[in-house]
Amino acid sequence: MSRPTDTPPDRDQAAAWWRTGIIDMAPDRIRFRGCPVQQLIGRVSFVDMIWFLVVGVMPSPRQARLAEAALVAGVDHGPQAPSIAIARMAMTCGGSLNNALASAVNVLDDVHGGAGEQAMMLFQDIRSRLVDGDDLARATEAGLAHWRRRYGPIIPGFGHRFHRTDPRAPRLMALVAEVAETGEITGQVAAIAGEIERQLAAAKGRRIPMNIDGATAVIFSELGLPPPLGRGLFCLSRSVGILAHAWEQQQQGGRNKGPLPKGWLWQYDGEPPRDCPPV
Amino acid sequence: MSRPTDTPPDRDQAAAWWRTGIIDMAPDRIRFRGCPVQQLIGRVSFVDMIWFLVVGVMPSPRQARLAEAALVAGVDHGPQAPSIAIARMAMTCGGSLNNALASAVNVLDDVHGGAGEQAMMLFQDIRSRLVDGDDLARATEAGLAHWRRRYGPIIPGFGHRFHRTDPRAPRLMALVAEVAETGEITGQVAAIAGEIERQLAAAKGRRIPMNIDGATAVIFSELGLPPPLGRGLFCLSRSVGILAHAWEQQQQGGRNKGPLPKGWLWQYDGEPPRDCPPV
Amino acid sequence: MSRPTDTPPDRDQAAAWWRTGIIDMAPDRIRFRGCPVQQLIGRVSFVDMIWFLVVGVMPSPRQARLAEAALVAGVDHGPQAPSIAIARMAMTCGGSLNNALASAVNVLDDVHGGAGEQAMMLFQDIRSRLVDGDDLARATEAGLAHWRRRYGPIIPGFGHRFHRTDPRAPRLMALVAEVAETGEITGQVAAIAGEIERQLAAAKGRRIPMNIDGATAVIFSELGLPPPLGRGLFCLSRSVGILAHAWEQQQQGGRNKGPLPKGWLWQYDGEPPRDCPPV
Amino acid sequence: MSRPTDTPPDRDQAAAWWRTGIIDMAPDRIRFRGCPVQQLIGRVSFVDMIWFLVVGVMPSPRQARLAEAALVAGVDHGPQAPSIAIARMAMTCGGSLNNALASAVNVLDDVHGGAGEQAMMLFQDIRSRLVDGDDLARATEAGLAHWRRRYGPIIPGFGHRFHRTDPRAPRLMALVAEVAETGEITGQVAAIAGEIERQLAAAKGRRIPMNIDGATAVIFSELGLPPPLGRGLFCLSRSVGILAHAWEQQQQGGRNKGPLPKGWLWQYDGEPPRDCPPV
Repeated sequence: MSRPTDTPPDRDQAAAWWRTGIIDMAPDRIRFRGCPVQQLIGRVSFVDMIWFLVVGVMPSPRQARLAEAALVAGVDHGPQAPSIAIARMAMTCGGSLNNALASAVNVLDDVHGGAGEQAMMLFQDIRSRLVDGDDLARATEAGLAHWRRRYGPIIPGFGHRFHRTDPRAPRLMALVAEVAETGEITGQVAAIAGEIERQLAAAKGRRIPMNIDGATAVIFSELGLPPPLGRGLFCLSRSVGILAHAWEQQQQGGRNKGPLPKGWLWQYDGEPPRDCPPV
Repeated sequence: MSRPTDTPPDRDQAAAWWRTGIIDMAPDRIRFRGCPVQQLIGRVSFVDMIWFLVVGVMPSPRQARLAEAALVAGVDHGPQAPSIAIARMAMTCGGSLNNALASAVNVLDDVHGGAGEQAMMLFQDIRSRLVDGDDLARATEAGLAHWRRRYGPIIPGFGHRFHRTDPRAPRLMALVAEVAETGEITGQVAAIAGEIERQLAAAKGRRIPMNIDGATAVIFSELGLPPPLGRGLFCLSRSVGILAHAWEQQQQGGRNKGPLPKGWLWQYDGEPPRDCPPV
Repeated sequence: MSRPTDTPPDRDQAAAWWRTGIIDMAPDRIRFRGCPVQQLIGRVSFVDMIWFLVVGVMPSPRQARLAEAALVAGVDHGPQAPSIAIARMAMTCGGSLNNALASAVNVLDDVHGGAGEQAMMLFQDIRSRLVDGDDLARATEAGLAHWRRRYGPIIPGFGHRFHRTDPRAPRLMALVAEVAETGEITGQVAAIAGEIERQLAAAKGRRIPMNIDGATAVIFSELGLPPPLGRGLFCLSRSVGILAHAWEQQQQGGRNKGPLPKGWLWQYDGEPPRDCPPV
Repeated sequence: MSRPTDTPPDRDQAAAWWRTGIIDMAPDRIRFRGCPVQQLIGRVSFVDMIWFLVVGVMPSPRQARLAEAALVAGVDHGPQAPSIAIARMAMTCGGSLNNALASAVNVLDDVHGGAGEQAMMLFQDIRSRLVDGDDLARATEAGLAHWRRRYGPIIPGFGHRFHRTDPRAPRLMALVAEVAETGEITGQVAAIAGEIERQLAAAKGRRIPMNIDGATAVIFSELGLPPPLGRGLFCLSRSVGILAHAWEQQQQGGRNKGPLPKGWLWQYDGEPPRDCPPV
């Protein structure tokens, strides 16, 4: 039996294997989520575009303002952060900026880049308990208890090993309050985060203030994102600092930059000198 | 001889090994290039912040508008681009979004992510010949000849293997013209790029129109950036599409996504079946 | 108070921050786990060295033979595997072999590279139940039930989506049996794996034979490794195939290799053509 | 016109897009370069398999011995090497061993992992001048002059910033001499390297002895490899140390390990405190 040559089923199957709703393309035509690229360029901001492409909707100006603030806040925390140190070391090894970005963004994993995502999980779990009719204090208690049973004692988004009060968090929360007043976000997640802070302080006898991960988790949750995108967007944000440091290092020069100044050595704490074991 | 304990030379040496002008930090205080982070949050756009951190200066609104357009334009070119395909495949292998971003951004190397940087090298080389007093046509001729001798026949930033006219380029160049009229950029690099286009058409007998790499190279050069940052900023831009596709793939599901539909195989063109050579 | 200048506490603290028992170095001297490097070179095999450095002990010849077989078996599973496809695509983007290796090894994550580690967890959990005095059938039942409750229905190390009988597994298990007869390994984990296979077949009414991940998990467990090193050693093994394919692709040429042949496109299944939403 | 449904040209085209001579597969059958995998397992060493897969030929026992020595020699140079430091830092960020390997192997680029490849380029360039009939001293002189003109004053493979005599190089060269006596390698590249050492010493008035990159470049060139594989094989070798250190760090624990001890800070050398510029 013949097959019409203009619609080959195999090629269709291959096309379907790579199907996407993000981009449609034909010669001389690129559309993102249905919209011609030339309409987007010069009209939407970079943050609008991030939202449109990743989340799938065009944010309102006030939503974009919050997203923008969260992205601005997380760009860098200095070269003692492994991501930044890695970017600087990578640039002295001979690769290009894309390679330094890759080695560095790669380590924004559960511990270094996951706190925001984890705080979103916690906040959204508590929010789902509110939907079930519980009041804020009880839902928060239950959510915290559940978190500790499942993931251990660290409550993500609160406390900081370096700052007593993370200067980024209060500023971000002020912006959240501003937008909540307009009704464009509900402020419910901000209230949850505030209640967590209150309960942590009551339990510990001292403030464990919200940090940047908690504050951005409030923003991203208020804006309706699922937790994994909290990490994804943090990666975009931190990529800015990674790029800045990689480029600065490039200009400083250096070859094979080690973690300690040239000539310093590590401490060896293994087997004493010995002959090679027989094989 | 004694050493004052409050300024240990060793620790100073270690601090100097990691010196930076990007970020200053003390408990409860973060300053980027001298400015308190809480002043930046909610006040500057994400693109302002990218510029401030990476380039080192705060852009004017019109400069930011051009930078924003360039960053918006490059976010994605579909899953046939290796960077995007890799992100989608990576997400089915069990890692997180940061890992998918890393494997994908890593391949924005000379061939896949370097055309913008290369176009900036070409444009800026021609610009330096103008500064030496040459006229535009002659400087461009000399610059093109130099490029071909050194790097081969491909002129970066012009022509596209898929689009006859890359729909992003004319829109970006229109924005460049707008801002050039205000005097905030000189328009000199745009003129160089236009002259290259003219000379390529004359030589080939058909238009080889500027593509997105050429147009963003014009923008970044007009804004005073050195070529490597063209690649660096493209990496930030394409990271958006990489993230969008990785996340979409996550939602589509799949395990160990191969390049071809499940059950398809590659063609083997090597040695015929044989016994293992003796060792 | 003075501080002796020959033992600066700060520098000691920095040295301790990077302490290691793997390598000791001074000018003209390198010792691995206490042994001079020049004694190791030309005397121990690459697999001996892998074991010595990673695991910390020099394997006996028979142990090395098993480790060698496991490392040989996992080198490659063809370009439909994401790791291999990524390596080939990466090489057409302009980077070097180290970059292609990085993007590819990165995806040997829980789903693509974690089955061996997971099988080791399962086997060792069952083994620990045996130590508690249970008999093999009951310990295996309990272990399988525990696994399913905690991680879901997939039993790692058994079954293959492509092969009915993975040709690598029986060969590896024959080597395990050989060495078990000499008494250098106990064969206990091999027995556990056999019992799992028996119970899976009884439950499903058809054989779900052990695959390469199961067989290498038996070997690495018999050799006393903790589960994460199962993944680590698989990464070393698969790096060989990744390198071979990246290099072959380099010789084939190509620029920006997409997953489908040049000119093929993906299927767009998103929003219909529309104007850009207002911002 | 009809198309036979059992040989769809589209699927053939897709198969050809991913063609390879490395691996042939069908259900229950895997052949590497024509040989059944089950014949290779338990019969060839890991180094044989590396050679067979990557280079394409099965090495003789003496060739394998040299390759083995080169792979053993390069596994680790301690945590001041960026690759090793990155692996250790990465493991404290929450990812798995595959992720740490990726971030670390990625930086084995031109400066950190390319010296062996570069030494191979130099040696093979000099060898090609010998083939043209020149004598060793003159060919070496010409090769060194050519190298300096093209790549600058650093001669790859000689001298070390830490060791006066790299203890790995003489041991490797002794093995080369052993095998050269049997006639299985010519020893020609070893002679070239010796002549370079002689000319460097004559020019500088002091020995600039061959380092490990020079010695492995001799071995890989004597074994007939093209320069890029020198870097590729070094990546396999160094992956062993990377894995060992990542695993050791995992056992030491720690979260977000920075380059300096906890609480130390970097030196800020940028703009003094100031208000945020207007935007």
